Amino acid sequence: MNFDHSTKAQEYIAKVQNFMDVHVIPYENELWYEGNEDWTSWTINPRIEELKSMARAQGLWNLFLPSESGLSNTDYAPLAEIMGYSALASEIFNCNAPDTGNMEVLEKYGTHEQKSQWLEPLLNGEIRSVFCMTEPDVASSDATNIAGSITESGDHLIINGKKWWSTGIGHPKAKLAIFLGLSDATAAKHAQHSMVLVPLDAEGVHIKRMLPVFNTYDAPYGHGEVHFDNVSVPKSNIILGPGRGFEIAQGRLGPGRIHHCMRLIGVAERALKMMVERASERIAFGKPLTYFSGNADIIANARMEIDMARLLVLKTAYLLDTIGVKGAKSEVSQIKVVVPNVACKIIDQAIQMFGGMGVSNDTLLANMYGYARTLRLADGPDEVHRMVVANTEFKKYNLKI
Amino acid sequence: MNFDHSTKAQEYIAKVQNFMDVHVIPYENELWYEGNEDWTSWTINPRIEELKSMARAQGLWNLFLPSESGLSNTDYAPLAEIMGYSALASEIFNCNAPDTGNMEVLEKYGTHEQKSQWLEPLLNGEIRSVFCMTEPDVASSDATNIAGSITESGDHLIINGKKWWSTGIGHPKAKLAIFLGLSDATAAKHAQHSMVLVPLDAEGVHIKRMLPVFNTYDAPYGHGEVHFDNVSVPKSNIILGPGRGFEIAQGRLGPGRIHHCMRLIGVAERALKMMVERASERIAFGKPLTYFSGNADIIANARMEIDMARLLVLKTAYLLDTIGVKGAKSEVSQIKVVVPNVACKIIDQAIQMFGGMGVSNDTLLANMYGYARTLRLADGPDEVHRMVVANTEFKKYNLKI
Amino acid sequence: MNFDHSTKAQEYIAKVQNFMDVHVIPYENELWYEGNEDWTSWTINPRIEELKSMARAQGLWNLFLPSESGLSNTDYAPLAEIMGYSALASEIFNCNAPDTGNMEVLEKYGTHEQKSQWLEPLLNGEIRSVFCMTEPDVASSDATNIAGSITESGDHLIINGKKWWSTGIGHPKAKLAIFLGLSDATAAKHAQHSMVLVPLDAEGVHIKRMLPVFNTYDAPYGHGEVHFDNVSVPKSNIILGPGRGFEIAQGRLGPGRIHHCMRLIGVAERALKMMVERASERIAFGKPLTYFSGNADIIANARMEIDMARLLVLKTAYLLDTIGVKGAKSEVSQIKVVVPNVACKIIDQAIQMFGGMGVSNDTLLANMYGYARTLRLADGPDEVHRMVVANTEFKKYNLKI
Amino acid sequence: MNFDHSTKAQEYIAKVQNFMDVHVIPYENELWYEGNEDWTSWTINPRIEELKSMARAQGLWNLFLPSESGLSNTDYAPLAEIMGYSALASEIFNCNAPDTGNMEVLEKYGTHEQKSQWLEPLLNGEIRSVFCMTEPDVASSDATNIAGSITESGDHLIINGKKWWSTGIGHPKAKLAIFLGLSDATAAKHAQHSMVLVPLDAEGVHIKRMLPVFNTYDAPYGHGEVHFDNVSVPKSNIILGPGRGFEIAQGRLGPGRIHHCMRLIGVAERALKMMVERASERIAFGKPLTYFSGNADIIANARMEIDMARLLVLKTAYLLDTIGVKGAKSEVSQIKVVVPNVACKIIDQAIQMFGGMGVSNDTLLANMYGYARTLRLADGPDEVHRMVVANTEFKKYNLKI
Repeated sequence: MNFDHSTKAQEYIAKVQNFMDVHVIPYENELWYEGNEDWTSWTINPRIEELKSMARAQGLWNLFLPSESGLSNTDYAPLAEIMGYSALASEIFNCNAPDTGNMEVLEKYGTHEQKSQWLEPLLNGEIRSVFCMTEPDVASSDATNIAGSITESGDHLIINGKKWWSTGIGHPKAKLAIFLGLSDATAAKHAQHSMVLVPLDAEGVHIKRMLPVFNTYDAPYGHGEVHFDNVSVPKSNIILGPGRGFEIAQGRLGPGRIHHCMRLIGVAERALKMMVERASERIAFGKPLTYFSGNADIIANARMEIDMARLLVLKTAYLLDTIGVKGAKSEVSQIKVVVPNVACKIIDQAIQMFGGMGVSNDTLLANMYGYARTLRLADGPDEVHRMVVANTEFKKYNLKI
Repeated sequence: MNFDHSTKAQEYIAKVQNFMDVHVIPYENELWYEGNEDWTSWTINPRIEELKSMARAQGLWNLFLPSESGLSNTDYAPLAEIMGYSALASEIFNCNAPDTGNMEVLEKYGTHEQKSQWLEPLLNGEIRSVFCMTEPDVASSDATNIAGSITESGDHLIINGKKWWSTGIGHPKAKLAIFLGLSDATAAKHAQHSMVLVPLDAEGVHIKRMLPVFNTYDAPYGHGEVHFDNVSVPKSNIILGPGRGFEIAQGRLGPGRIHHCMRLIGVAERALKMMVERASERIAFGKPLTYFSGNADIIANARMEIDMARLLVLKTAYLLDTIGVKGAKSEVSQIKVVVPNVACKIIDQAIQMFGGMGVSNDTLLANMYGYARTLRLADGPDEVHRMVVANTEFKKYNLKI
Repeated sequence: MNFDHSTKAQEYIAKVQNFMDVHVIPYENELWYEGNEDWTSWTINPRIEELKSMARAQGLWNLFLPSESGLSNTDYAPLAEIMGYSALASEIFNCNAPDTGNMEVLEKYGTHEQKSQWLEPLLNGEIRSVFCMTEPDVASSDATNIAGSITESGDHLIINGKKWWSTGIGHPKAKLAIFLGLSDATAAKHAQHSMVLVPLDAEGVHIKRMLPVFNTYDAPYGHGEVHFDNVSVPKSNIILGPGRGFEIAQGRLGPGRIHHCMRLIGVAERALKMMVERASERIAFGKPLTYFSGNADIIANARMEIDMARLLVLKTAYLLDTIGVKGAKSEVSQIKVVVPNVACKIIDQAIQMFGGMGVSNDTLLANMYGYARTLRLADGPDEVHRMVVANTEFKKYNLKI
Repeated sequence: MNFDHSTKAQEYIAKVQNFMDVHVIPYENELWYEGNEDWTSWTINPRIEELKSMARAQGLWNLFLPSESGLSNTDYAPLAEIMGYSALASEIFNCNAPDTGNMEVLEKYGTHEQKSQWLEPLLNGEIRSVFCMTEPDVASSDATNIAGSITESGDHLIINGKKWWSTGIGHPKAKLAIFLGLSDATAAKHAQHSMVLVPLDAEGVHIKRMLPVFNTYDAPYGHGEVHFDNVSVPKSNIILGPGRGFEIAQGRLGPGRIHHCMRLIGVAERALKMMVERASERIAFGKPLTYFSGNADIIANARMEIDMARLLVLKTAYLLDTIGVKGAKSEVSQIKVVVPNVACKIIDQAIQMFGGMGVSNDTLLANMYGYARTLRLADGPDEVHRMVVANTEFKKYNLKI
């Protein structure tokens, strides 16, 4: 296993870190966009657009996409960590979910027409996209449950279904949804679903509301509930072909989980830094909090857990780069369990170290917690991923499960 | 140890439970008040006032106060649990914090004038009050740090200081603050502070903002930051006398912690019930979630932890009733550590069982979590209470700490 | 719920505590019997026999048995805790497992003849008995798996089967086994098994070996593997009647679990006391261990966990006394999970506080750990008891499991 | 970071694995030596000596020592894991502690004479050695407490002191102790101690007893208590020079902790394999244990924790190889906390999965647990290593501790 970063990656690391230090972190308060429940009123902070231009001009753009940046998963991982340090940074580098995953799908599986219509403007950061998979009425953790339907009608496909947790759908620039739906209930279990490109301005696409996460709407992105009522799109909008939804999803999820997890490692590092500073500065009972060894234990454990979690993500990135997503199935699930749990724990401990301030918005911790907590559910809950990991162990010894 | 409830208490249990089942739980959505950051716009839901009248008419009023209800701490404990089941119930019975603690203080230590001016309308539920202790600039977990000042000036006291986490201060009916401040820095360590009654409409009382808890403002109550700038009140507004602030605080905290903890037990029971129902109804991979024994383990552990936590609170109530707050010092700290942690854990597990819905507001879980999480900090963080418990063990063997 | 102890119980508490303080604890080293693997060489420490006579003379004898002592489960619980403080104390008061459970069975279900032959000498402490249930070849946690057989042959029963973890079978005075076996595989699931009295000197009873627990043989009691090869006993040796084995087992287990758990609470208290003393006395980096707040946190948590565990056992005892074992099914399983886990954790933490000395035999901690660890398995592992607790929750809401 | 193994290392991995599979694992029962408390009666199993010859003949000898094997720490790490799979394997490859550490010290710091007298026969596996540091009377976790004394007397050094946990001292071939003692109490804190070579047959060396670990004596090695009473050795027996004890200890501990931790990873892998097989084969309530998802969760978590722990050790090995022990100070402490805790947890869970058999000696689990548990104490307890890790974090931000 070799986690060494290429020379190119090392240059990017220095540049992205510098960009963050100079242009992002000091201005987080100004860059932050506070939107309320009424998502139709959300606007874009023009400073973000300026920073996007600046990042693009410096070549710090679309770094997540190997065909654009020439970076492997192992190379990109530390960049995702650096960007993850601030919740608003990834978009500045056009490296934010779910656009990243959607661009990967289009780049890998899209037709020439699909690419020129959707991938181009996404790569330019001109539009944004969403991924519509999770449904309120079924346990979407078992993706074969997905019930939203795709039926043929002449040379069109008719889309119906309720989706929620469609991240980014509240953004003023959101134009495209990738819809995962049931296209053939009689096919083999993993060939029943397809992915279809649906313009968000198509007739019958109804954004019902934005879902809060611990009372925040994550504006101007948002997590939407959206209903598709007899939405009609040309057959050419299908990706790769009918029944190939899961095949695409598999390829999409590997790198996406690396990105999510490395961003979260960045979040956890930030919480640890805040905790360390607080413990050193805050005086109680006449001594700094560090004097109380229980706090030092928490800090030590946090360091160990972050470092181990990062190594596990790097190993997974390395496996994706060398043997592909199939060979890394257990590891991709492992990091999905480990990293959000580690992040939640450390952020929670930082909150505790800050006292009441920790649950307010006077620090970023409360929202960091909401973000990390959500990732114990998004893309499959811990429980499902543990099943994958356990099953791999049984298979190793050819044991029945 | 005897946790049997008096006949009177048993009657109240039945009545309060019935009131909750018939008048509160089915109407929670309508009773809920959604207030935003601009607390000056907050209003009172008239339905709450109607329910208050109804509860009072049924004698379900001020049950927390022994002199009014004739109930011991042991007797009142199960009532607090039943009320705690819904976040908006306690006020309906005039049993909500911090008014409960403030009424106890006035009832126990107030002069005749103080009582007729403030206790009377509080007991009638006509006004609301706040308790101003925690300060942003010092570790208030060590109460001897409190720096807000009370100085004499003729026959008046001049109040200065910044306070925050002043719960209830956003309520339209909030009229009174009990201010804990430093009155004599040269006195013995535990005789330096006093408590003073400050009308919220006094000149120099500036409510700066409401503090969110995981992005919610807990309207129409709110947790405020309030600055006292040369606020002048008559010397007669002091409670019990100069330098007796900690003495009062001690007496106030024992029953208050029983109340907080039993309400939280109610919250935890609710989360457990939700989890059990979800596990039975939700189907994943062709089976209800209960089929997966990991979920059954979570449910079993939750039941054990709630039951043990409740027993510990009842024991503490029994000790307060029989040997008083001094003899129950360790136990009062024990429940303050145990119950919020148990509640946080179980609510978090319920969130996980609900998937994405759990972090949204489609269930009450996200706000239940914020409430329980805050109680790991309010009234002293876990860490301080563990110190108290450990010190008691060392003292038991006359060992140095 | 009323945990008050009767006047009689309070007298016993004082007397047993005094007996322990004066006659047992100071002489533990002398009373300890170190036996090796060769159980046939085990002897009885005559000092134990002297102490038995002394305890009996003071009326501190058979206190566990309501018909003898007049004590309820609630009354007996604190006595079991006091005796549990030292591993060798219970026998001195004729209150040791499994004789206690066996005496209960004989007293409750035995015929006049069975009582005079076996119960009498057991109550006199003249002989010892074992309970043969667990089998090496099946998951005995599911008792319906028990495969050892009981077949009729004329006026005799023929016993066959392999049993292990037959506690006490190495003792020189062990004379009787109660054998649980399959008597009718065609009967309803819970009527297939019977209990039969088998004299250990019967032909065909072969004690194969003693099983170590973390390398110790628990001499002179031992945990034996014993094979029954065509052992013949008169039909009158059956208890209560054919097919009633589980019915008897149910009645036996309730009080037995109270005893086990309260003894373990005594063990945990002892570990906590050792830890507190060590933390106060041991100097590292120029300060006593108590200075390091991580240790104080451990001590505080231990106190809370012991106190909660004890309350849960007392509640369970109270339920057994008032509504019987059926109504307390969940609670009997709850304590069986909670108490051994709490004890293991605290003993382990005490070991850590003692450093290398903790894993050696220079303290009692290593053997205390082995004892507590075994009780996470004996009488059903944690996992099975959690299932019982979870199922009770589902039934509460009439939900399917 | 690059964990790739050199071609040479890969060849060794294959060879050592094959040796283990063919010559060690199938014969563990025969190779096992069961010694009792009377260490003077311990003998050597001749089969072990044969296997040593065989391993040496195959070049699988002294692989831990870079100057002999040409392997880096990163290269050697997987070999230590493979050897760690069986408790009796390391000696067969002459790679067992504490001889490894002692040989490193002699190789690195020994004079020509010291090498020819002691290193040579150690490298040949002809004699064995011990390291005498820990003392019963002081908290040796703070090594500056070490009180055993080294005083000059003419051209000799006089050694006095009580040591314990001197591993390997019961072995019939044990001939040499490296003694760490106080040579100059007036020197700077880290220059007060020296290391001296003491032949075990020197007059005044009194081996008092062997210390059990959970009742086992780890024969024929043993962990001894040894008293040095005016033992006289020539001044030339000092290593490196007076006052340089800690300097040597530092260099010794880095690789030693890699070895310990990788061996433990091997132990944990073995426990996981046992658990997986048991869960698949054992039937309870009509289903294999794997059916109960709680068990699958345990297995999944074990896989994640082992993999993360291994990565952290590999990272530490890589740091030792590239920037040396000073730069890896935090990591060396991190693995010392993480790995033994992970191993203890997984072995304990395997014990639980095996039921009563798990605490007996019918599996290796009970002794694996004792070994892993001891490593939470040996070479510094968790608590001290967490301090090191926390302090590194504070230093990172130039914060006061």
